[in-house]
Amino acid sequence: MADGFLSLWRDLEPIGRDAGSGGYRRFAWGGADGECRDWFRDQARARGLRYEVDRNGNQWAWRGDPERGDAVVTGSHLDSVPDGGAFDGPLGVVSAFAAVDRVPDGGRPLGIVNFTDEEGARFGVACVGSRLATGTLTPERARTLRDAQGISLPQAMERAGRDPDAIGPDPERLARIGAFVELHIEQGRALADTPHPVGVASAIWPHGRWRFDFHGAANHAGTTRLEDRRDPMLTYATTVLGARKKARLAGALATFGKVAVEPNGVNAIPSLVRGWLDARAADRPTLDTVVAAIEQAARERGGRDGVTVTVTEESRTALVEFDTALRDRLAALLTERHGGAPLLPTGAGHDAGILSAAVPTAMLYVRNPTGVSHAPAEHATEDDCEAGVTALAEVLEELVCR
Amino acid sequence: MADGFLSLWRDLEPIGRDAGSGGYRRFAWGGADGECRDWFRDQARARGLRYEVDRNGNQWAWRGDPERGDAVVTGSHLDSVPDGGAFDGPLGVVSAFAAVDRVPDGGRPLGIVNFTDEEGARFGVACVGSRLATGTLTPERARTLRDAQGISLPQAMERAGRDPDAIGPDPERLARIGAFVELHIEQGRALADTPHPVGVASAIWPHGRWRFDFHGAANHAGTTRLEDRRDPMLTYATTVLGARKKARLAGALATFGKVAVEPNGVNAIPSLVRGWLDARAADRPTLDTVVAAIEQAARERGGRDGVTVTVTEESRTALVEFDTALRDRLAALLTERHGGAPLLPTGAGHDAGILSAAVPTAMLYVRNPTGVSHAPAEHATEDDCEAGVTALAEVLEELVCR
Repeated sequence: MADGFLSLWRDLEPIGRDAGSGGYRRFAWGGADGECRDWFRDQARARGLRYEVDRNGNQWAWRGDPERGDAVVTGSHLDSVPDGGAFDGPLGVVSAFAAVDRVPDGGRPLGIVNFTDEEGARFGVACVGSRLATGTLTPERARTLRDAQGISLPQAMERAGRDPDAIGPDPERLARIGAFVELHIEQGRALADTPHPVGVASAIWPHGRWRFDFHGAANHAGTTRLEDRRDPMLTYATTVLGARKKARLAGALATFGKVAVEPNGVNAIPSLVRGWLDARAADRPTLDTVVAAIEQAARERGGRDGVTVTVTEESRTALVEFDTALRDRLAALLTERHGGAPLLPTGAGHDAGILSAAVPTAMLYVRNPTGVSHAPAEHATEDDCEAGVTALAEVLEELVCR
Repeated sequence: MADGFLSLWRDLEPIGRDAGSGGYRRFAWGGADGECRDWFRDQARARGLRYEVDRNGNQWAWRGDPERGDAVVTGSHLDSVPDGGAFDGPLGVVSAFAAVDRVPDGGRPLGIVNFTDEEGARFGVACVGSRLATGTLTPERARTLRDAQGISLPQAMERAGRDPDAIGPDPERLARIGAFVELHIEQGRALADTPHPVGVASAIWPHGRWRFDFHGAANHAGTTRLEDRRDPMLTYATTVLGARKKARLAGALATFGKVAVEPNGVNAIPSLVRGWLDARAADRPTLDTVVAAIEQAARERGGRDGVTVTVTEESRTALVEFDTALRDRLAALLTERHGGAPLLPTGAGHDAGILSAAVPTAMLYVRNPTGVSHAPAEHATEDDCEAGVTALAEVLEELVCR
């Protein structure tokens, strides 16, 4: 059966891969994303599965009639971050088809889903497809989203042949789902040093994005005395180092991975440095404390630099505890069959996290020896991919047939 | 006669000004630059001056026949940095026309020049027009320059109706010039606290640009443990702060004003942070020492972050000492007429600095109360602009007629 997975994988693998970086550029509603979506549709049709696209652009493939309710669904997403790896998202969708191929017909409808725009790489908001469906992103706000070229989400959907007027909550569809299981590559090294190729998710850490605007005064780098400067790059640099230190002390994560500078000239002191903080922690009080400490450090240094600091919370996601009964059932099954399935928390958001508010939800993680995520070195071995398909098939059979 | 300057100034002022920032976007061979060039041509023709454009695109307006030799030339440039101020460059060209209007005919030919692409905002190399003319930029290298949209300098020149095959050294033209005087807004506050609206340049500090490439490992900001990261943003931040400290200790200037990040995603640890160092000091040994110390600090931190640091010298300009005899003659004249003309060094490069290797060259600075340069707040009062025109006219008359 390994040929089943590998053949599917190799079919999808070249789409949207950049020859230079080796990374993927599959952005929502763009050309490569469209090719991935065609692949999904073709896979559904090749199996005689009922294929549908919902009002928010999420793709579904069904064995059995979902309108019977209490359906079991698995899947993930096919879009990528800029120059992302091959596994984040696609491993869950490819494994879904490979696993469903092995699951005997059972009492419950069985579905495969590709959620649209999970990464948010193009429009800046993650999990658009699942957030719209669950109502945590309103269609009004979604219609205001624009990409870096100024193309709005409705324009992008129209160009891809979708109707942006239709987007919005989809409670009837979600109500038909009795259990959702997302398989995903692990995004760290918690499994790497264990004998277990597959783990089960326990929770998703609360996390958020904060935009720090450092306003100084543009001036000539060659003529302005150091003491006459109001250089926001200095305040930014201090804040980057402070964020790392505050996170380390609290056992949290804090990252400045994106920055924009004005005017961004080689011989110009910037007027504005804008940096985005990504922060995550095991619980909300810790997260709040870390972000407040970073903000305070930024303001203190800004006072000395003559730089004003404004902080805007761009997004925030609460702690997600996955369905305890489902989680324990899967962990017990995998432990019985394979001798163990570690329970793992994660700092990353997923469609499964969004859905967990509306549907009993669980996640399986496949071991990633590099621990690298969102970059070309992201990896799982063929054996571990196969172990993931086996585990997912066992889990689906347990849910569908028993 | 103040009306003469003000009327010229107001005619040029709106071209290429951004309504949002209030700053100027006059980039070599672009639309606003073309409008400025048309203005120069029209001013020359309105005065019956002989108008020519040289092989490198520099514009000239002549009273008398330059081929007689020993000409006196004044002027500056009309292009700007991104969102630059109104004065850097244009003050020297507008003052040139206003001053020449007041200078009686004398024995020597008198010329006004607009040097092309002084700021280097579009193609990354400063003083392209004067460097090509003097041979310090080869036409081969100039033809490889590209802007951020990938448009090459030859393509940009062709679109503006110029012949890029013609660019190159212009020794015959330079040999006809007996003296070049560039008037420029001061780019610091050395005159601001004196009673003198006009100063005379002594020297231009040696300076250069170094590109620092910090190579780390892209990874997921939400899942990668701090101890597993190779985050180049941390190394960059430490280097920014180190540069400021090393410059302060040495009495030099060091600035990181431009940065580029890959992939520059909110939830991605960067694979690459690229920062450009602009460094200047009173003499070459000090400059070398400061840059070496910054590089060492970057490498030390890089070692701890698992980040490799490569440093590329992109440009370097040696100390410019202006022509001593010409400088002293102008300073003596202005002191006699106005009671003083301070001698000032500067950290900024100018076409006058490039020309000084081939032609006896001097510079006049006009007081800038804000000290701001390369930004909209750059300013000179009307009275000080008028004092600049008067001083320039006196200087030109001294050179042309005596």
